[in-house]
Amino acid sequence: MKDNRLTEIVKSLPASIPFVAPEEHERSVRQKFAVRIGANENCYGPSPKVLEAIKNVSGDVWKYPDPTAFHLKNELAKFYNISDQNIIVGEGIDALLGYLVRLFIQAGDKVITSNGSYPTFNYHVEGFGGQIFKCDYRDDKEDLQLLIDKAIKTNAKLLYFSNPNNPMGTWMRGDKIVSLLEKLPDDCLLILDEAYAEFAPNEAKVPILVDDPRLIRFRTFSKAYGIAGARIGYGLGSRELIGEFDKIRNHFGNSLLSQVAAIAAIKDQKYLSDVVKKISLGREKIYQIAKLNGLTAIPSATNFVAIDCGKDGNFATHVMNGLLEAKIFVRKPAVAPLDRTIRVTVGRDDDIELFKNVFPQVLKALQ
Amino acid sequence: MKDNRLTEIVKSLPASIPFVAPEEHERSVRQKFAVRIGANENCYGPSPKVLEAIKNVSGDVWKYPDPTAFHLKNELAKFYNISDQNIIVGEGIDALLGYLVRLFIQAGDKVITSNGSYPTFNYHVEGFGGQIFKCDYRDDKEDLQLLIDKAIKTNAKLLYFSNPNNPMGTWMRGDKIVSLLEKLPDDCLLILDEAYAEFAPNEAKVPILVDDPRLIRFRTFSKAYGIAGARIGYGLGSRELIGEFDKIRNHFGNSLLSQVAAIAAIKDQKYLSDVVKKISLGREKIYQIAKLNGLTAIPSATNFVAIDCGKDGNFATHVMNGLLEAKIFVRKPAVAPLDRTIRVTVGRDDDIELFKNVFPQVLKALQ
Repeated sequence: MKDNRLTEIVKSLPASIPFVAPEEHERSVRQKFAVRIGANENCYGPSPKVLEAIKNVSGDVWKYPDPTAFHLKNELAKFYNISDQNIIVGEGIDALLGYLVRLFIQAGDKVITSNGSYPTFNYHVEGFGGQIFKCDYRDDKEDLQLLIDKAIKTNAKLLYFSNPNNPMGTWMRGDKIVSLLEKLPDDCLLILDEAYAEFAPNEAKVPILVDDPRLIRFRTFSKAYGIAGARIGYGLGSRELIGEFDKIRNHFGNSLLSQVAAIAAIKDQKYLSDVVKKISLGREKIYQIAKLNGLTAIPSATNFVAIDCGKDGNFATHVMNGLLEAKIFVRKPAVAPLDRTIRVTVGRDDDIELFKNVFPQVLKALQ
Repeated sequence: MKDNRLTEIVKSLPASIPFVAPEEHERSVRQKFAVRIGANENCYGPSPKVLEAIKNVSGDVWKYPDPTAFHLKNELAKFYNISDQNIIVGEGIDALLGYLVRLFIQAGDKVITSNGSYPTFNYHVEGFGGQIFKCDYRDDKEDLQLLIDKAIKTNAKLLYFSNPNNPMGTWMRGDKIVSLLEKLPDDCLLILDEAYAEFAPNEAKVPILVDDPRLIRFRTFSKAYGIAGARIGYGLGSRELIGEFDKIRNHFGNSLLSQVAAIAAIKDQKYLSDVVKKISLGREKIYQIAKLNGLTAIPSATNFVAIDCGKDGNFATHVMNGLLEAKIFVRKPAVAPLDRTIRVTVGRDDDIELFKNVFPQVLKALQ
């Protein structure tokens, strides 16, 4: 029976959650994964300086964290050569997406995204009663032109676009994005999710346009910086828009350890570029593994590779399940035609080696 | 100029934030505090086993945390002898209050609280467009009878009550709360904020009534357990109500390190009872300091003491400012008649000693 005290929107929401965690899967099959290459984590971990920073500050964990994230925002402001008033720090991009949707969306407001892109964004939009319009990918890429056309047609308030894209790993040229942004109406906001930006080639980079009120960019310490467990991400946008977050956010949401870890992470750019290089080599290995098995890998600008399993979504699901049974944690897109692929995170050499050995067996068993 | 894309509620919100952090104050006066006894943190810090646990798990920080907080909920379920389905873990009580308000409150819905109690709760209610009715304290205590009467009269959806109370440190007998709960209408929810429960005498304890749909209790690891910097708290309630959080919360909001720290904290009950004893002794010292200065301390069931400065709110503000200038961080209630007090957290012996020396000087300078 529905609880009548709940809001109308909450009463209408399903019990579903955006992602089932690998730990939950492990518990349901009573077996631990041997390899964790399904959540696009950085399997190399963070800079040793991050671990050192966590260790050094842990004695201060009795103190509340700084709700303004002053020092972290300072580091980010220096890094991007912008004002700290253009930066909002939050409990991962997930939380920031939630806050942003709350700022803009009331029941019936329209939102544009792609069919198969980040489910957590949709979760938040539905959670605030927004109406989602989905455009198809084109050639495994999010189609920004089509998304903007749809935004104009529907008079949408928000448009979500990731670059590089998750779950396919594809990317768009930065200059193309900037020129398409010109066509976006003033009353629409482009949410540019750049969770994987640090892995991308230079051509995918968008210059930092923090003063355009039609654009907010989200970045994270969960991917290239290797601290997904710390739950910390940030947004870059106009001062006015960034200021709005303070009216609604959980001001004391960013843990002390996470703030300190993020500061240490961004300061160690040498480690970052080394790890990005390693991951780029790992990506090549996964391309090779696909080829060895007669399959095609989608060229990726991220730390994961979508492998086209060559048949339909049903077949790719069997492939994924075969890997899961062999204790290899991978995920796959849920929506056609992306669902013909499995998504493999670039693991460490050992992880890739194990995947290389098991993958042909899984494919063979399905013949 | 207002951004027209924002929701009607957000457009109506002030730019104010619930709390100014001590770090922000330090930056504005360009001087560090010598003593941090204003945020009701546990100045003794957490169990050494907590620091050990953080250290041991920090190498795993590249992994996303378990969004179900499975192991932490298991420990809590054992501790309270309830099901894990009666427990929700969140990014501090602040975040849980925000989620709860979002579940229940749409524009114009009515909410009952006390004049002078937790500002962050009001911040969330206003943030979702709720209408707040405030009852006065009686004898420096939140008046649950009066609050329930008001809830009945206004047909309120939510009623906030803290036990022990912040900012006064007072408490109500647990059996009294249970008997008053009988009078609460079925369509109202009592939010029992028990952030300071571990410091309270047995008579203040409410039996765990997790199956009553009219009650949710919030507890935290920020106070007695000494890990405010980790931002982790939890709610106890009926399975149905707890299940609703999963429809809207940030599923990956609880950091890996925080979950592990909380598990280590709850497992070390010996440390907890030792630290609670130390704080009880510290409380007595602060009572004595008040007395030595011809003032009255409000008897407290928490890790802080409200000292009645003997005059009005304006005078107490001068006392607080005098202490701040002397590098002693304290806070005070904002609303009359509570505002005649300053609120002093039980610090370590050195902290209390410094406060003991400086307090008479501050008072003398104001004569």
